[in-house]
Amino acid sequence: MGHIKQHAEMDVDGAMLVEGMPGVGLVGKIATDHLVEEFDMELYGTVHCDSLAPISVYHEGERELLPPVRIYAAPDEDLVALQSDIPVNAAAVSEFADCLVGWLTDEDITPVFLSGLPAEKSGVPELFGISTGDAGGLLEELDIDLPPENGVVSGPTGAFLNEAGEVGLDGVGLVVQSNERFPDPEAARVLIEHGIGPLTGIEVDISELVDRAEEIRKQKEKLAEKMRQAKDEESSKAQPLRMYQ
Amino acid sequence: MGHIKQHAEMDVDGAMLVEGMPGVGLVGKIATDHLVEEFDMELYGTVHCDSLAPISVYHEGERELLPPVRIYAAPDEDLVALQSDIPVNAAAVSEFADCLVGWLTDEDITPVFLSGLPAEKSGVPELFGISTGDAGGLLEELDIDLPPENGVVSGPTGAFLNEAGEVGLDGVGLVVQSNERFPDPEAARVLIEHGIGPLTGIEVDISELVDRAEEIRKQKEKLAEKMRQAKDEESSKAQPLRMYQ
Amino acid sequence: MGHIKQHAEMDVDGAMLVEGMPGVGLVGKIATDHLVEEFDMELYGTVHCDSLAPISVYHEGERELLPPVRIYAAPDEDLVALQSDIPVNAAAVSEFADCLVGWLTDEDITPVFLSGLPAEKSGVPELFGISTGDAGGLLEELDIDLPPENGVVSGPTGAFLNEAGEVGLDGVGLVVQSNERFPDPEAARVLIEHGIGPLTGIEVDISELVDRAEEIRKQKEKLAEKMRQAKDEESSKAQPLRMYQ
Amino acid sequence: MGHIKQHAEMDVDGAMLVEGMPGVGLVGKIATDHLVEEFDMELYGTVHCDSLAPISVYHEGERELLPPVRIYAAPDEDLVALQSDIPVNAAAVSEFADCLVGWLTDEDITPVFLSGLPAEKSGVPELFGISTGDAGGLLEELDIDLPPENGVVSGPTGAFLNEAGEVGLDGVGLVVQSNERFPDPEAARVLIEHGIGPLTGIEVDISELVDRAEEIRKQKEKLAEKMRQAKDEESSKAQPLRMYQ
Amino acid sequence: MGHIKQHAEMDVDGAMLVEGMPGVGLVGKIATDHLVEEFDMELYGTVHCDSLAPISVYHEGERELLPPVRIYAAPDEDLVALQSDIPVNAAAVSEFADCLVGWLTDEDITPVFLSGLPAEKSGVPELFGISTGDAGGLLEELDIDLPPENGVVSGPTGAFLNEAGEVGLDGVGLVVQSNERFPDPEAARVLIEHGIGPLTGIEVDISELVDRAEEIRKQKEKLAEKMRQAKDEESSKAQPLRMYQ
Repeated sequence: MGHIKQHAEMDVDGAMLVEGMPGVGLVGKIATDHLVEEFDMELYGTVHCDSLAPISVYHEGERELLPPVRIYAAPDEDLVALQSDIPVNAAAVSEFADCLVGWLTDEDITPVFLSGLPAEKSGVPELFGISTGDAGGLLEELDIDLPPENGVVSGPTGAFLNEAGEVGLDGVGLVVQSNERFPDPEAARVLIEHGIGPLTGIEVDISELVDRAEEIRKQKEKLAEKMRQAKDEESSKAQPLRMYQ
Repeated sequence: MGHIKQHAEMDVDGAMLVEGMPGVGLVGKIATDHLVEEFDMELYGTVHCDSLAPISVYHEGERELLPPVRIYAAPDEDLVALQSDIPVNAAAVSEFADCLVGWLTDEDITPVFLSGLPAEKSGVPELFGISTGDAGGLLEELDIDLPPENGVVSGPTGAFLNEAGEVGLDGVGLVVQSNERFPDPEAARVLIEHGIGPLTGIEVDISELVDRAEEIRKQKEKLAEKMRQAKDEESSKAQPLRMYQ
Repeated sequence: MGHIKQHAEMDVDGAMLVEGMPGVGLVGKIATDHLVEEFDMELYGTVHCDSLAPISVYHEGERELLPPVRIYAAPDEDLVALQSDIPVNAAAVSEFADCLVGWLTDEDITPVFLSGLPAEKSGVPELFGISTGDAGGLLEELDIDLPPENGVVSGPTGAFLNEAGEVGLDGVGLVVQSNERFPDPEAARVLIEHGIGPLTGIEVDISELVDRAEEIRKQKEKLAEKMRQAKDEESSKAQPLRMYQ
Repeated sequence: MGHIKQHAEMDVDGAMLVEGMPGVGLVGKIATDHLVEEFDMELYGTVHCDSLAPISVYHEGERELLPPVRIYAAPDEDLVALQSDIPVNAAAVSEFADCLVGWLTDEDITPVFLSGLPAEKSGVPELFGISTGDAGGLLEELDIDLPPENGVVSGPTGAFLNEAGEVGLDGVGLVVQSNERFPDPEAARVLIEHGIGPLTGIEVDISELVDRAEEIRKQKEKLAEKMRQAKDEESSKAQPLRMYQ
Repeated sequence: MGHIKQHAEMDVDGAMLVEGMPGVGLVGKIATDHLVEEFDMELYGTVHCDSLAPISVYHEGERELLPPVRIYAAPDEDLVALQSDIPVNAAAVSEFADCLVGWLTDEDITPVFLSGLPAEKSGVPELFGISTGDAGGLLEELDIDLPPENGVVSGPTGAFLNEAGEVGLDGVGLVVQSNERFPDPEAARVLIEHGIGPLTGIEVDISELVDRAEEIRKQKEKLAEKMRQAKDEESSKAQPLRMYQ
């Protein structure tokens, strides 16, 4: 069975989690990676599911090997982040969702799930918010937009939302218009400025995201390409219901 | 194991259920969606099977996320509806049938399963009725036609009927001639007017179905296309036995 | 687990069963369907295996839905028939064989398994008989021919014979030369006249088979086509060992 | 689970078994079939594994149906033979190996596993012997050659040797140069004359093998063709390690 | 379940293990094979997992058959080596990793996992070291380089490192630049001289590796070709994270 292995003692009870699984435009991953770096978040734990790829990841200038899916925390900000270096294969999605949502429930953490919605944007990407359990009120207070049409969230983020709904966990989903083909740091910026920031009450410096947008696009080009070719179950994505069907 | 999670306290004991899984012409889905809307039916529960796609659905102007297969009820009309936004994959069909029929048995609900039969129609689509358990009498009283030739019902509807027959649940199957390639609101209208209406004793206003036929055809074009390409197990369909073999 | 659900109280103890799974030339199915019709056999029970296609079958002018594999009986003739509307997929073959042979053993029924052997025929199709357990004597008494060369029976009929042999059930296999590509009512006639008739001691009127041969060929063309393309495990067939290898 | 069903009471305790699964050049099968015929060996038992093809085999002029993998015995010669009419599919290989080696251990039988090694031969095919457990001494006494280079035995014979080694059963492997594409009765003759004969101490008349070589080649052409196209796991074969990798 | 079968009584407690699964440039396999030969290491045990290919390996001039994955030991040098003649298929990787790491933990052995990193080399191949548990200190003492950029280790070696990290076993990973297409004895030499030698404190004569480089390249060409075409899970490889994604 999947489980989360805690690496450091940190109090994350009642915190909010930002989820960064790869998907359309890599919007969730870019936003989450930015937060991990910006707040110098510490490794809280690692995620272990039988069907996650059994690989080992290393980082520049560091000896320690890590598994590809990890949880970071900034306890002072009541902030937790789910970071992944790899897509999750279709077989792992449900097991992973069970395991993550179980842990969120135990730790009383409110998740903020992130997804791109492929769109030809004009001006600032539009953002809307959806919810499971009783988290709808959080979105109302902040005047985050309602869904403009019927739609579906698939991929790991869809599975997390589905599982959260089934067990009644309060959770939020933020959906932002995104470039369908390339990494979209601009959409990630909107997620942070208009969604994650207000929801968590944390002020986030997004200048790096803006200044380094081109560099991020290049660096993540290959992963974005991989996600574009991934199966529906493997890439987080929101879509109008009529397009999904 | 698959299960049905109840969301609201409603008395559905002894009601009739209308089943709207996608299939040929989307006749069952269009009829069921119409009833859900027309009677402003409330969410009674959601269906959870391990092999159903773990996605999450949202609706225009609403925060709440829902799973893709749901049960609605109009207790005053003794009416229940099974609504699905997605095809059911082949692996889920049997588990889903077990779970649904078990619940129908427990709640003493009489199901009305709906299926299209691909045909070149001339005039009003023809309708006939078949049954499991002792429900044949219901059809006799209403003078609903008998099958004009040997045939087979496959897909989710076929699996529901098969399971209902195995456990001896009283159930009805309504089969209507349908366009094989496109959404067929006209066939759905016949299902309601000549089948569901008489069976349930409910008067249903079908003017929307008639007036908005073109719109429905467009809106559901993509799903109809998907069902046409689906495997036999995934798309509800009736066929003459000689064509099925 | 597979099981047989009894629908009517009939005494079939000590009867003989004729098996009509689809295979080369549909010889077993045509012969069995003819017997069911000719003797107006009644539904005795239905066969339920997890891996049989979960579909539902209806018949002209009748309300009652039935599963695709069924057992009929004519108790006065001590005759039972296994009728199938569908091929059995490869995954179901072994489970089905276990379940059928277990039931035959419990009810003390002697099965007569039927198979075509693809051949360019000249004159009346040749027939030979093989056996499991101690049923060889039955064939000797009737002077039914011995196999003219080494061979193998595959498909559902092969699995039934294999299982019967393993548990030591007395069973008979009748193999008849058959057209490889098309439904072969003539071969089915030989099975009945020179095999099933003598074995069961029942006089069977085969005029319908002769008169309606062309009609049967047309009606079952599609199924015969399907069987020709089926995998080895799904289509009953006898072959010389050198051709099978 | 796989098991061996005993058909006749015979004392095979302490005997030697000759293994004739199909593989390169069909050398093991040809040698084993020859011994079964030459010594008029009797049916001792049949092999039943869930993943062996559920087919039924008949022989010219005989009523009795048999499963495709069988064990014959000539108790007076202390000789047992494993005869197979079919290749073993990949899924069955390990289960079959477990089951056969377990039985050999219980009955205290020393197996002689047979395999061809594809080679361009000049003159008499070369033969060498390998072993598991403590059977190496048997080969030493008889001056059977050692392997001329590093190599690997795959297919059913490889699985038998692997399993025998794991449980510590004394077993012998005889590897003979063989034609890679066609049935090779000449290599089978060498197996018998220079390997099986000396090991078992039985004098075997091989004149039939020599006289009927052409006929055997023709008769088994189709099976040899099948084995050439089989997956590595399904066709017994020895190869130099550098070729296998 | 996978297990390691001990063949000889040797004290390996507290030793270091060198891992030689095939991967990019076969660097780990070439280094490990060299050590086994150079120190005339003895067979300690054999590795048995259900999903490892059930084949049997023989060596020139020796009777004894062996399974394809084996452990050798040189107790005087406190050295253990994992030698494999075959790639490990994807299904076996996790089971194999569980089984190996469990045994390493029980025997208190520190593993040195080896992997190539595809690169256009100029001059001596670069080497860096990574670690699990508390083994980072070993690398620090020896001034082995840190990773120059973010990266991922996949294949069996990645699975071993992943599992070692999960259970907290102290383990070392050595990554060396390697030719991507051909066996790379030069990279293997660097692994030994600059990594394994210093870590184990053993002086290793590498003249054979240098003198026989061309021969080794030829001999292992086919396996290197196979590894190049293997799936990610089957071939040990390090890569920059941006290339892996």
